[in-house]
Amino acid sequence: MLSKSLIAKFAEIAGKNVWTEQEDLMCYAYDASFGEMCVPEIVVKPETTEQVCSIVKLCCEESIPLVTRGAGTNLSGGTLPVNGGCVLLTTGLNKILEINTEDMYAVVQSGVVTSDLALAVSAKGLLYPPDPGSMKMSTIGGNVAENAGGLRALKYGVTGDYVMGTKFFDMEGNAVISGGKTVKMVTGFNLSGLMVSSEGLLGVMTEHTLKLVPQPQSSRSMLVIYDDLMKASVTVSEIIGARITPATLELMDRFTIKTVEEAAKIGLPTDADGLLLIEVDGHPAAVEDEYAKVKSICEKQGGKVHVAETPEERDRLWEARRKALSSLARLKPTLILEDATVPRSRIPEMMQCIKDITSKYSLTVGTFGHAGDGNLHPTILTDKRNTEEMLRVEKAIDEIFASALKLEGTISGEHGIGSAKAKYLESEVGAGTIRFMKKLKNGLDPKNLLNPHKMGL
Amino acid sequence: MLSKSLIAKFAEIAGKNVWTEQEDLMCYAYDASFGEMCVPEIVVKPETTEQVCSIVKLCCEESIPLVTRGAGTNLSGGTLPVNGGCVLLTTGLNKILEINTEDMYAVVQSGVVTSDLALAVSAKGLLYPPDPGSMKMSTIGGNVAENAGGLRALKYGVTGDYVMGTKFFDMEGNAVISGGKTVKMVTGFNLSGLMVSSEGLLGVMTEHTLKLVPQPQSSRSMLVIYDDLMKASVTVSEIIGARITPATLELMDRFTIKTVEEAAKIGLPTDADGLLLIEVDGHPAAVEDEYAKVKSICEKQGGKVHVAETPEERDRLWEARRKALSSLARLKPTLILEDATVPRSRIPEMMQCIKDITSKYSLTVGTFGHAGDGNLHPTILTDKRNTEEMLRVEKAIDEIFASALKLEGTISGEHGIGSAKAKYLESEVGAGTIRFMKKLKNGLDPKNLLNPHKMGL
Repeated sequence: MLSKSLIAKFAEIAGKNVWTEQEDLMCYAYDASFGEMCVPEIVVKPETTEQVCSIVKLCCEESIPLVTRGAGTNLSGGTLPVNGGCVLLTTGLNKILEINTEDMYAVVQSGVVTSDLALAVSAKGLLYPPDPGSMKMSTIGGNVAENAGGLRALKYGVTGDYVMGTKFFDMEGNAVISGGKTVKMVTGFNLSGLMVSSEGLLGVMTEHTLKLVPQPQSSRSMLVIYDDLMKASVTVSEIIGARITPATLELMDRFTIKTVEEAAKIGLPTDADGLLLIEVDGHPAAVEDEYAKVKSICEKQGGKVHVAETPEERDRLWEARRKALSSLARLKPTLILEDATVPRSRIPEMMQCIKDITSKYSLTVGTFGHAGDGNLHPTILTDKRNTEEMLRVEKAIDEIFASALKLEGTISGEHGIGSAKAKYLESEVGAGTIRFMKKLKNGLDPKNLLNPHKMGL
Repeated sequence: MLSKSLIAKFAEIAGKNVWTEQEDLMCYAYDASFGEMCVPEIVVKPETTEQVCSIVKLCCEESIPLVTRGAGTNLSGGTLPVNGGCVLLTTGLNKILEINTEDMYAVVQSGVVTSDLALAVSAKGLLYPPDPGSMKMSTIGGNVAENAGGLRALKYGVTGDYVMGTKFFDMEGNAVISGGKTVKMVTGFNLSGLMVSSEGLLGVMTEHTLKLVPQPQSSRSMLVIYDDLMKASVTVSEIIGARITPATLELMDRFTIKTVEEAAKIGLPTDADGLLLIEVDGHPAAVEDEYAKVKSICEKQGGKVHVAETPEERDRLWEARRKALSSLARLKPTLILEDATVPRSRIPEMMQCIKDITSKYSLTVGTFGHAGDGNLHPTILTDKRNTEEMLRVEKAIDEIFASALKLEGTISGEHGIGSAKAKYLESEVGAGTIRFMKKLKNGLDPKNLLNPHKMGL
C-alpha cells in the first residue's frame, strides 16, 4: 500500500485521474491472458506527456514498479502488475496528431485505439495495414509494445513494419526520440526498433510516427470449404510456394467453424472439416490473375471456393474470422490461446502435431489463425479450477512449443512473452541471449521498475 | 603496440590470419569516408564462429578495442579504428548457408558480399532487394550494421526490412540469437532490430537470416531529361503524391551528368540540367498503368521520357547511376558524400537549399541520389590540404544538416553516424536520447571496447 503522502504526489501530477480504491484497482488486475490476479497499488491516467514524465520520475525516485497499460487486450500477461506498484494508463493520451497524406505517415499518441486510427486514415484515402484481432479495443502503444500482428500481416507485415519513429521516456524521465518522418533514417541506435516488442520493459512510450500506404485498388475475398483440414493446410503451403502473397490467408478447423456458427449465425458450413478465408488485393489485373491461380490451387486440393460477390458478403466472411476467439470463449470458463509459429511450408506438419498432442491429452481445442504466416492459434478450452485437466493442458502446451521449435519455428508469433511464456523463452533463444537481455534491461532500468519480471527479467 | 605474447594468443586462435606489420595495418586505417588515418594494432580474420568468439573473449580480457570490418565501404567512418586495437575482418566468414525457396529466406554469414547473395538468390528465381551502391564489394554484415539503403529502397525498403534474424557475440563472448526463420516472431527483445544500424557498437555479428521476395514479373526503366533541375524534383513529389511507388526513382544534377558521361561515355545528355532514372515493376498490367501515369506526370513538368527498350539499354541506364560516385571521385583529391534526407514532399525545397548553400560557399558539388526516398547525396569535391576551402566545406555541411532538420528530415538517411557525424547527432535526437544510448552501450559493453567513440559514445 502506498502512503497517503505518496498518493498525494500522484494526485498533484494527474489530478482526479488517480485511483487507489480496491474496486478500481481490481479492474487492472487482469488482462486478456490466462493469468493470476495481480492487483496494483495505484492506477494513474496522465493526459499530457509532461504528466507521463512526472509520473515516471516519481516512480523512479520512490522505487515504485511501473506497468504501462493500453486497453489490456494483451494475451501473454504483459500488462499484469505482478509486483503491484503503479499502472499507468495510456488511454488519456489518445490524440491523432497528424495524418500526412503527401508523405504518407501518421503521428499518434500511444493511447489511440487501433481501429480509430485505421478509420481516420481510410477517410483520407490511405491504409494503415496492421489489423490485430483486438483492433476495436487495442491501442497503438500496446500494438507497438507487443509488435501485434493481424489478418493482413501475410502481405503487409506486422506493427513493427510500420513504426517510423517513437517517443518515450526512459526510467529516469529522459525524453527519448528515435526515428521520424523520413522513410530512411539511421541516426544512432535503432531505438524505435528496440521499443517494438519491448513489452513495457524499457520505457513509457507516448508517441508514434507510423507509415501509411496507398489503399489497394481492388480485392477479392473467398471462402474455401474442405472436407479434410489437412488438405486446407496443404493448400496454404502451395499458395505461398506458387509465389502468391494474398493479403490474408486464414484457417479455421471444424470445432471453430461450428462454434462461430452457433454464436454468430453467419451461414458457415458446419459439416466442413476446415475452411480457408483468403483475400487477394492490388492492381485489378493482378487480383484477377492471383484469384484464378488461388482458385485452381484450392480446387486441386478438393476445396470448394465461394467468392464474396458484394461488400456485405465480404464483411460477413471477415466477421466470421474475427468472431473466432470470442465465440470459443463462450464455451468454457478458461480459454488459453497460443500462437506458436512455424515457417510457412511447415504448416501441415504443425497442424498434425497440434491434432496429435491435443487428442493425446483429451483436450477441447479449436484451432484457427494466420495460416499464411505459419501462425496458428490452437485455443484450449478448459476450467482452471479443474486441476487434473490443467496438468494435461500444461503438458500439451509444453509439447506444442517443443514441436514448433523442432520445426524451426517460435513459441510466439505475435502475442509476446510477458509472464505467460517467460519460462519457455530460454528454450528458444538460449542462455547467452537471456544474459544479453538482462544486461540490456539492467543498463536501462537498473532498479528493475519497468514492468518487472516479464520475459523472466 | 601489442606485446608478443598477446599477438601469439591471437595467432593461436586464427593461425596465419593475423597481421601486425605496419604495411598490412595501413590497409585498414581508412574506410570510404573522408576520415583521418587510424592505424589498428592488429588485424585478424577468423574463419569460424568459434574463432570469432575466442577473439572477442581475448579482447575483453585484455581490454583491447575491437572494430568489426567487412569490406570497408563505409561512408561515415564507421570502421575506422580510432582507438587502435584490433580490427576483426568478417571476410573469412563468407558462406551462404541456406537459400530456402519454399519459405523464402536466406541464411548467410556476415562476410558474404551483397551482390554474391543477390546473384545466388536470383539464380533460384527469387529477389534479395537491398542494393546499396557498393553492393559489388560491401558485405551483408556491414549492410546490416549500417542499415544500408540502395536504389530499390523506395518500393522495397532498406536492409533492416529484410533482417529476420541475427546471431552475434556480445563483448563477453555470449552467443546471442535473435529472430529466426518465421515471418512473425516476438520472443523477447527485438535484438535483431537493435543490431540493425548498431554500427559495430553492440556485438560482433556472424550470421543473418534474410527475407527474400518473389521476383517482379515485369518492369520498365526510363530516363527522363529536364532543362530545369527543379522541375525534376517537383516531378518526384508528384509521382509519390499520385500514390505510385516506383521500384527506383533516382535524380542527377547537371554536374553529375556531365561527370558521369565524361568518365563512362554512356550517351547521357550533357546539356540537360537534371535527369530522373525511374523503374516501375510488378504485375505486367500494373507496370503498364504506372508507366503511363509516370510518363504523363514527367511530361507535364517538361521532362523528355526515353524508355529502355532492351535489357542492355536498361543496364546502361543503371550503370550511369551506379557510376555517379566513382566518376565524381576522379575530379578532386577529396570527396565528401552526404546523405541528409527529408520527407519526400520536401525534395524541391531541399534541392533549393543545397543549391543556395553550396553556391554561397563557392563549392564544387554534384548532387544525385534516391530522390524518391527524400534521400539526396550532395557530393562536395575538394582537397583536404586546402584548409581555407575546408572551412567553407564545413560551414556548408553544417547548413545542409540544419536545413534537413528544419524540413523535418534527418542528418543521415543511409550512411550512419560513425565518427563523421557524431558531433551532429544530438542536434537531431536531443540530449535525452544520447543519455539513453550511453546507458544502453554501457550496459552491454561496460569497458567501451566495441568500436569505441563512434556515434559520440
